[in-house]
Amino acid sequence: MQSKAKTAITPTRAEDYSEWYQQVIKASDLAERSPVRGCMVIRPWGYALWENIVRELDDMFKATGVKNAYFPIFIPISFLEKEAEHVEGFAKECAVVTHHRLEKDRNGGLEPAGQLTEPLVVRPTSETIIGDSFSKWVDSYRDLPILINQWANVVRWEMRTRIFLRTSEFLWQEGHTVHATPEEAKERTQLMLDVYTKLAENYLAMPVIRGRKSAAERFPGAVDTLTIEAMMQDRKALQAGTSHFLGQNFARASGIKFQTAAETEEYAWTTSWGASTRLIGGVIMSHGDDDGIILPPKVASAHVVLMPIVRKSKDRLKVMEFVESLALELKQKFFHHRRLVVEIDSRDIGGARGWDWIKKGIPLRVEIGPRDIADNSVLIGRRDSAHTEKISIKRDQFVAEITNILDDVQDNLYERALSFRTNHTVTIDDQKQFYDYFTPENADKPEIHGGFAISRWCGSDTCEAKIKEDLGVTIRCIPLDSENDNGTCICCKKPSASQVVFAKAY
Amino acid sequence: MQSKAKTAITPTRAEDYSEWYQQVIKASDLAERSPVRGCMVIRPWGYALWENIVRELDDMFKATGVKNAYFPIFIPISFLEKEAEHVEGFAKECAVVTHHRLEKDRNGGLEPAGQLTEPLVVRPTSETIIGDSFSKWVDSYRDLPILINQWANVVRWEMRTRIFLRTSEFLWQEGHTVHATPEEAKERTQLMLDVYTKLAENYLAMPVIRGRKSAAERFPGAVDTLTIEAMMQDRKALQAGTSHFLGQNFARASGIKFQTAAETEEYAWTTSWGASTRLIGGVIMSHGDDDGIILPPKVASAHVVLMPIVRKSKDRLKVMEFVESLALELKQKFFHHRRLVVEIDSRDIGGARGWDWIKKGIPLRVEIGPRDIADNSVLIGRRDSAHTEKISIKRDQFVAEITNILDDVQDNLYERALSFRTNHTVTIDDQKQFYDYFTPENADKPEIHGGFAISRWCGSDTCEAKIKEDLGVTIRCIPLDSENDNGTCICCKKPSASQVVFAKAY
Repeated sequence: MQSKAKTAITPTRAEDYSEWYQQVIKASDLAERSPVRGCMVIRPWGYALWENIVRELDDMFKATGVKNAYFPIFIPISFLEKEAEHVEGFAKECAVVTHHRLEKDRNGGLEPAGQLTEPLVVRPTSETIIGDSFSKWVDSYRDLPILINQWANVVRWEMRTRIFLRTSEFLWQEGHTVHATPEEAKERTQLMLDVYTKLAENYLAMPVIRGRKSAAERFPGAVDTLTIEAMMQDRKALQAGTSHFLGQNFARASGIKFQTAAETEEYAWTTSWGASTRLIGGVIMSHGDDDGIILPPKVASAHVVLMPIVRKSKDRLKVMEFVESLALELKQKFFHHRRLVVEIDSRDIGGARGWDWIKKGIPLRVEIGPRDIADNSVLIGRRDSAHTEKISIKRDQFVAEITNILDDVQDNLYERALSFRTNHTVTIDDQKQFYDYFTPENADKPEIHGGFAISRWCGSDTCEAKIKEDLGVTIRCIPLDSENDNGTCICCKKPSASQVVFAKAY
Repeated sequence: MQSKAKTAITPTRAEDYSEWYQQVIKASDLAERSPVRGCMVIRPWGYALWENIVRELDDMFKATGVKNAYFPIFIPISFLEKEAEHVEGFAKECAVVTHHRLEKDRNGGLEPAGQLTEPLVVRPTSETIIGDSFSKWVDSYRDLPILINQWANVVRWEMRTRIFLRTSEFLWQEGHTVHATPEEAKERTQLMLDVYTKLAENYLAMPVIRGRKSAAERFPGAVDTLTIEAMMQDRKALQAGTSHFLGQNFARASGIKFQTAAETEEYAWTTSWGASTRLIGGVIMSHGDDDGIILPPKVASAHVVLMPIVRKSKDRLKVMEFVESLALELKQKFFHHRRLVVEIDSRDIGGARGWDWIKKGIPLRVEIGPRDIADNSVLIGRRDSAHTEKISIKRDQFVAEITNILDDVQDNLYERALSFRTNHTVTIDDQKQFYDYFTPENADKPEIHGGFAISRWCGSDTCEAKIKEDLGVTIRCIPLDSENDNGTCICCKKPSASQVVFAKAY
């Protein structure tokens, strides 16, 4: 049994945030490293979380008229080359297929054979291959808009990988739309940012800042990139979803032309937008504590675990009957259009059982022993409270109230994350203060720095690059609601009207 | 306008079955070829069908205790080599990743760079990479069974490809389970065959024969392969799902060992089972007619299309109001735990509109004009009836009856497919009759042959190979319910107790 003072995760966040993150994932069975460089195995507990995120996003996409489709995983090199900035951005880290067969070599091992005439890249993103289809689907303005989404795996050969945050292969969705006017395309770019915002805030309980990327941070080939940025508990930013207005760049590259109502021929206006399994990393780092992950109830892999307490074997039957009938009753209930997912854990392993579920981040733990049954009550523990805090309530009341309790957990997680962000966001107009804010007091713990700085920037690449070079700090976004009053650039001190969010980032 | 005599698809099934298949796919917007060799683009109408198949299968899997997870798309060559028959079966047609970067070549183009120490294969199936995880997850009999499924894309570099039936990349699910005893693993293999049977017969309206593969047709590395086989309208067989008992072969290859209750160490017993986007090809060829695909209502991309008929502009408002309120009412209804999917098509393109939906195979078409509204009725056409057959029924009755009508379409499709199979399945014990049965009368139309032959086989590879060589006919399966009476092998005439299904196959 672990004592009150000891935490379930070693090290704690304060001791070593980065190692804490790895240990939380391990302790929760969310995922693990695979023998393939940089690729992860998403275990059932992590995949169920992803499935819930997928369903919520998918429903929201479809409500805006988007339809799902599927395009090839392979992209011929010549396709990637069609857009100059795009290839520049993705050619440096991609998996290249060069052969289509394996043959025995002289030592009896296998070697690649059947060389391809044109090598293929495993998609890092699909603008160019989907653009090829779009060019065939679009003839006239009557064919527009086209609103497509794809759920897929993508590969980017990252040198330094971290489970969920940066892996060579990850799962995502990529939306791609085609429009007759730039206005309509820009509207769609905004609309999909709204969807991501809703997912992050209402489902993942993760408050975000909505903004526009600087030119240096844009998607390669985009005219404008919108983003949502969340603060993790090490005060670094996580980009949690991006939506790109691509102008006519990719339409030109792929030949997506249409005849207008006035019978002229024009290139179309396209958008793309994506969110990925990286969001799971965001959930871990937004809500996790020193006992492990805390799952937001609306996307939790399971909502509640029932743990029968049987000390004498004569009690077993009665306790199990009570537990199973309670589970059955709970499973009939809905929590935000999803049926309650109920686990029963009757393992006889002492206190380790409760700790397992704490580490897995399940929102509610329920203990049920003979005395609870005699009183027709249950003992509940909320994952967002201290693990020692348990409340006894009547069984009927628990069944009646469980969705309210889950809503309360959800709201509490959001409020805590929002307070944390508020407490670590400062408006800074003084250069020295800015440098101090981002300089860790202790070089061993680079994560202990100020947090988000709202500061003015003149708009020049030079200033942006200097700050990145000096402090490892980037412009996360120019907030959509930023005020345009007067001031001076935090770097060059030239007049600047634009407030931006500076932060270290994942 | 197309006349009654003309069909929407040219050529007809009788004229050229193979070309008919391609034209049906094109006319329905289900999918199309991509510029990447052998890879397809699954368009929204086809992907929605796949999504419905996925949901039904996924629900059935989960009801048997299976959980979803995700494993790397790349498999190191050394992993594939672990099981001898397995590598033999898959090394000949796989995509090999050899580099992780592109660099500018001398001509300004791109070439592969950053060679990998060990080439990676894009997964053709995942036994070996998932086995590696299992070897870490299993210590004791208490960890068993492990019941995992993965929804994923896989790649097999097929030389001759056909959309949905045989493509270089396809979508599928692959289930992988680990058990403590061979009995339990065999039971799971059967159970998953039951799930596939239910999917095929109850959802895809596709009757299947359940059986066991001969050694020559087994999954590479399996001890036993169970299969469901359906008859297409060219009388060829389509393997629609397989479930493999892998014995201890892959457990040995991947080191999946466990400690038994008696504290001995043993290799575990594993299974794997899969079904893929090939099922869509099966739906097309089971039910399609010379006007295009016919979608079984339980998995249809949409259930009903409402087509307002507005000849005078003064009628427009009234007709659209009626149509929209009807759509709203229908969308509230459920058809087998899925909400009705309702399309409204108000394009003013004459008879081509109705034909578009016929070609797309939507189960019900509804026409609504001012006269129907005056009578408070609608004119419905069922896709499984002749396109000229339309029935006028009262609006309220239509709303009340629509799910019954859809059930009737579903049942009708199944019954038709079953009759077709029955009419083209013959028990043959005479060798000459057998050879005649499989010899097309007209060499130009190799698909016009008998169909399925239920004949006896002695069990030897030689006889099996000779029949394949002579006629292009294979043993599709040894039916699970085959009777063991006495007779002689159709090939060598030695005594044989075993009746098997012979057929040409996709």
